Amino acid sequence: MAVLPEPVQNLAVAFERLPGIGPKTAARLTFYLLRAPEEVSRQLAEALLALKSQTALCENCFNITRAGQSLCEICSDPERDESLICVVEEPLDALAIERTAAFKGRYHVLHGVLSPIEGIGPEDLKIRPLLDRVRRGGVREIILATNPSLEGDATALYLRQQLLPLGVRVTRLARGLPVGGDLEYADQNTLLRALAGRQEMD
Amino acid sequence: MAVLPEPVQNLAVAFERLPGIGPKTAARLTFYLLRAPEEVSRQLAEALLALKSQTALCENCFNITRAGQSLCEICSDPERDESLICVVEEPLDALAIERTAAFKGRYHVLHGVLSPIEGIGPEDLKIRPLLDRVRRGGVREIILATNPSLEGDATALYLRQQLLPLGVRVTRLARGLPVGGDLEYADQNTLLRALAGRQEMD
Repeated sequence: MAVLPEPVQNLAVAFERLPGIGPKTAARLTFYLLRAPEEVSRQLAEALLALKSQTALCENCFNITRAGQSLCEICSDPERDESLICVVEEPLDALAIERTAAFKGRYHVLHGVLSPIEGIGPEDLKIRPLLDRVRRGGVREIILATNPSLEGDATALYLRQQLLPLGVRVTRLARGLPVGGDLEYADQNTLLRALAGRQEMD
Repeated sequence: MAVLPEPVQNLAVAFERLPGIGPKTAARLTFYLLRAPEEVSRQLAEALLALKSQTALCENCFNITRAGQSLCEICSDPERDESLICVVEEPLDALAIERTAAFKGRYHVLHGVLSPIEGIGPEDLKIRPLLDRVRRGGVREIILATNPSLEGDATALYLRQQLLPLGVRVTRLARGLPVGGDLEYADQNTLLRALAGRQEMD
């Protein structure tokens, strides 16, 4: 595009590398920043540069934490129930559960799911440290909150096999119709699970 | 959110400041970058920092150009027809027209539209330099390509009044049904314009 000078092109290309941002959105963001105060670009650039250098993984649950802290805020919070561990695929999943404000236990972030096709086995995930946490004792229940997908289910099944011999209760998040969803548009599998998991009204 | 350390929070907030990026997209982008190679964040940060310092406005058409160049690539290209000027609101509009590869003239970027409500008058736009370009002679036609909106139309009308006395032909982009659009979903005004502007089939 003859009309785009190199610095503008470079930024648009860098935006396009992000997931969910296509060429049109990348151009729109770039031209927005050209018009916005320099402050806006600068703050974004600084936050980007600080991201990796100022964050680390919690040594207990492997969620994201500040660099220099060995434990994340949740693992170092004595108010959180350490006998209850919610196992998630990614830090973003823990964030989603935190937003419900209904979970008072702790987390364990696997950083992925088992995927034979992509060559991801148990050793590539934070599974051994989870088993170690349970072996150290004091854990009553493990809630498997991997995604309700083929790989999430397979990972949950594998974890259940590993965890049950350790004498801990293993649960999985309920399946059914999403709240606010429309029965007419629910897929067959979701409807099957909703039927199978039907509950007494109270 | 107790679960989000400050550097992660900062980046999510910086992303949220961009247009069209809500809290969920901002979180998704941030967590994507946490997992991606540091290279990806760094290149985006560097492109952001270079954006303002390495760009300037073309002294002739006010499109974006490299800092240090007084004329943009289009204005310094002898192959482009300088007797034909396409007037657009923003640099992104010129880019959209360039993509058609059908326009071989030059541009003039207004950097906005007249908007009495927002207090934007003719002096706030690059209107005077456009009139100067025409007064210097050699301009045959001005294509007014402001947006087909209330303000874009008002700006085009104002420009027409200023330009006609200078003895130049003034045209406006055609209105009608968008290609690939659906007549059933066209709004009343578009349909009215499409009817009024109907053409012989050939």
